[in-house]
Amino acid sequence: MIAAPHMRIDLNADVGESFGAWIMGQDEALLPSLTSANVACGLHAGDPDVMRRTVRLARANRIVIGAHPGYPDLSGFGRRELGLTHAEIETTVLYQIGALAAIAAAEGVTLGHVKAHGALYNRSARDPEAARAIARAVAAIDRRLVLVGLAASCLLDAGREAGLRVAAEAFADRGYEPDGRLRHRGHPDALVTDLEAVLGRVRRLVLESTIEAIDGTPIRVHADTVCVHGDTPGAPGIARRLREGLEASGISVAPLVSEGPGR
Amino acid sequence: MIAAPHMRIDLNADVGESFGAWIMGQDEALLPSLTSANVACGLHAGDPDVMRRTVRLARANRIVIGAHPGYPDLSGFGRRELGLTHAEIETTVLYQIGALAAIAAAEGVTLGHVKAHGALYNRSARDPEAARAIARAVAAIDRRLVLVGLAASCLLDAGREAGLRVAAEAFADRGYEPDGRLRHRGHPDALVTDLEAVLGRVRRLVLESTIEAIDGTPIRVHADTVCVHGDTPGAPGIARRLREGLEASGISVAPLVSEGPGR
Amino acid sequence: MIAAPHMRIDLNADVGESFGAWIMGQDEALLPSLTSANVACGLHAGDPDVMRRTVRLARANRIVIGAHPGYPDLSGFGRRELGLTHAEIETTVLYQIGALAAIAAAEGVTLGHVKAHGALYNRSARDPEAARAIARAVAAIDRRLVLVGLAASCLLDAGREAGLRVAAEAFADRGYEPDGRLRHRGHPDALVTDLEAVLGRVRRLVLESTIEAIDGTPIRVHADTVCVHGDTPGAPGIARRLREGLEASGISVAPLVSEGPGR
Amino acid sequence: MIAAPHMRIDLNADVGESFGAWIMGQDEALLPSLTSANVACGLHAGDPDVMRRTVRLARANRIVIGAHPGYPDLSGFGRRELGLTHAEIETTVLYQIGALAAIAAAEGVTLGHVKAHGALYNRSARDPEAARAIARAVAAIDRRLVLVGLAASCLLDAGREAGLRVAAEAFADRGYEPDGRLRHRGHPDALVTDLEAVLGRVRRLVLESTIEAIDGTPIRVHADTVCVHGDTPGAPGIARRLREGLEASGISVAPLVSEGPGR
Repeated sequence: MIAAPHMRIDLNADVGESFGAWIMGQDEALLPSLTSANVACGLHAGDPDVMRRTVRLARANRIVIGAHPGYPDLSGFGRRELGLTHAEIETTVLYQIGALAAIAAAEGVTLGHVKAHGALYNRSARDPEAARAIARAVAAIDRRLVLVGLAASCLLDAGREAGLRVAAEAFADRGYEPDGRLRHRGHPDALVTDLEAVLGRVRRLVLESTIEAIDGTPIRVHADTVCVHGDTPGAPGIARRLREGLEASGISVAPLVSEGPGR
Repeated sequence: MIAAPHMRIDLNADVGESFGAWIMGQDEALLPSLTSANVACGLHAGDPDVMRRTVRLARANRIVIGAHPGYPDLSGFGRRELGLTHAEIETTVLYQIGALAAIAAAEGVTLGHVKAHGALYNRSARDPEAARAIARAVAAIDRRLVLVGLAASCLLDAGREAGLRVAAEAFADRGYEPDGRLRHRGHPDALVTDLEAVLGRVRRLVLESTIEAIDGTPIRVHADTVCVHGDTPGAPGIARRLREGLEASGISVAPLVSEGPGR
Repeated sequence: MIAAPHMRIDLNADVGESFGAWIMGQDEALLPSLTSANVACGLHAGDPDVMRRTVRLARANRIVIGAHPGYPDLSGFGRRELGLTHAEIETTVLYQIGALAAIAAAEGVTLGHVKAHGALYNRSARDPEAARAIARAVAAIDRRLVLVGLAASCLLDAGREAGLRVAAEAFADRGYEPDGRLRHRGHPDALVTDLEAVLGRVRRLVLESTIEAIDGTPIRVHADTVCVHGDTPGAPGIARRLREGLEASGISVAPLVSEGPGR
Repeated sequence: MIAAPHMRIDLNADVGESFGAWIMGQDEALLPSLTSANVACGLHAGDPDVMRRTVRLARANRIVIGAHPGYPDLSGFGRRELGLTHAEIETTVLYQIGALAAIAAAEGVTLGHVKAHGALYNRSARDPEAARAIARAVAAIDRRLVLVGLAASCLLDAGREAGLRVAAEAFADRGYEPDGRLRHRGHPDALVTDLEAVLGRVRRLVLESTIEAIDGTPIRVHADTVCVHGDTPGAPGIARRLREGLEASGISVAPLVSEGPGR
């Protein structure tokens, strides 16, 4: 069975989040199930050596890598809203993509995409000027880079305005409010923990462009990529089951771009 | 009078060493007298915004910029020997050049050279493997980059082996031992503070490839570039006088490469 | 002339804000005009050696020192609202006061007060739980420490609840809104730059417990201490003139506590 | 059976080495088998919140805690020799002990000892001036603190000179050279991995003040405390077996001081 164009999804995860002597995640076990890997760039997680090892690991697994820039905040893991100015957002994103691109180049690898991390991701989904600052940084480095952001958010608009290809991301293991926003993590139903339920949600997302809100309301969501949380215990097993389950349903699990800078 | 090829010298200084709320140096006053500016890359000094402002300032002054990578050690300003492994040196240099190159690219500027900072500079002058690690990083990013290092040091050998153009640096305001090493900063005669004496030393360096050691011994030194210490009080005035004095002697003060990535 | 109890004011400034190779402020020239010095504790500015030098300098000038804890954010100088939890605020304040107290103890000096820095100061003036977290930290270390905070803010209430002596701070060189808040720094009238005007404002503050708002409205403000901004150009001269002018008016410029931990 | 005074040993481990979002070690499982816990102080590992959680955990397990200051080098985990001056060593040790002491005080806990970390530990064992700088810092804070250092090293001499009680540390799971130095980690016999062999070595250390070198030579070593490496996989099980095995041999596993600041 050949997947129709819409019967296709990218599976991404944040990787390379170790720092110095500290290990985070299980990148070696997780990567084989992914099609895209977002590599931390040293300011909220990762360091030059971790970045290089992660690039090598992704290359060995033939996974497209992208830059995963975050706020400069190691002690807060990039999850605190630092309130950078838009100009500061632009330069820190330039800095981080450039740093990873150079390390990747030394390994013969070209970046395929950029996805912001943590508080910067959240801000770029709701602050149009922050979104434009990120899009400007990405476009200044390479217009072939795909800009990944929350489905239906202003980041995708900013990317298109800047002449970039964009990819809409959905979270199959997160609860959605009826209005399409992500359920805040404070609530007990913020996470969907049943693996088969998550698989069902991704299937419906791909086949019907729909995800069910916490109150049962079907929400229209177009998603090009689904995020697998690498820091969940058992993440490698979840990612493997997800990929197998999707492929068994005739859905093609494939990177965002079949040709381009990342291949 | 037209300068013969050997009657030519580049004047470089380390710039962009401010960090966040802290100001260092007088870049605006110093830059007009330079032909090359080494821009700190955020791990020992500088931050993304300082880097961008410095790139703009150099562009406005039509100065070639280069990357100035150092050890990841803000609190020690890159002056402490951290003992990084050679692999760690390679990745941290890749990281820093890449970060600056991306910010420069967003300003339409290409890097012209790379010069290591502080303890990394000193180590690269005496540790051939560290020197090769730096040369590999530079070559992996762009073989047109000029690698700047201490005259007659193993860094220049490493650069040539890696297929890079190299530039030999001398320090007109530092005392030299009779064997050609720099006099250690602990000694009272480690610094030449008389401006006219410094000018005379640069003239002789350019015209006769000779510098006088602390005991009067003439030492053969071929130098392509002379470093002006931007953190000396009055550095802008020193640099201006140096440039005027050299040009008045018929010496061309010109960047390392008249064509190439940096122009 | 003996100053009546109310004809008395403390002059404080933030000091010890250098970091590693970066110099900030003119502490040596500024300190002789102060009665209290708030010493940065290494997380937004300062480092252990700067802290020790600053303690020695204050001791030589017989100035009471206090801890000046801030958010852990060197690159943002503690001026960005990091959104720490209240528990995190408490532990970071404990950490910073303890670090300075130990360095001070090695110099035979006891801390006299605590004043939060930057975004943490602002937050403690409007977020009662943050204020209580700071007060708990101070009280856990030494109940004799004076807690300094914005006049009429919830920090002072929190300090009193925790059994601490509190000191109300006013800003003679900042514009006030008619409702008593500080004018936001974005406005042209946010700063009072005329020195004699500043002196007049401090005089009225001390003698009449009144400060004039930007629209001329007189505001009732009880202030125990006035902040001199050490990062203003010419700060040492401003502080000297302020002190001399106040003393010439019969106002006693004296530390917050004449007896106690800080003497 | 009552243990004779010499039939007694303290079991210590480095704990509280997590940082922000990064977890290191298995402190909860390890602590119950220890008698002393060395708590990282935020400059090479740990952060204020990790420190507080660790203090609480130690208190719940009735374990004596000590400060574990290291070089200010998060990215190198304090394992790189930074070459701080002796004055810088003194201030950074003051800073770190003070920070932990304040957090501990807020939990009603007093520190019992100080043990340097990583490269600072190694330097203090061979550089008498560095050793004196650490001893001065400890004595300035509280002369009742026990200074822990490598058995027979100059740190113990420096501690005694400063009027401190000292505790000699041995490493039962590390190979020793015939001259008493630790076998360098690069060699395959640098680590003793067989648990029963380690137990036998601790027994002989306690009962005969002797440890066997890699070539079989018996070395005289007086040890007050033995370090359990918390970062070894299975460390909690190793510590438990060690403690049980020692107690089964009639050896008392007890903290360094039965009375004093740490109790």
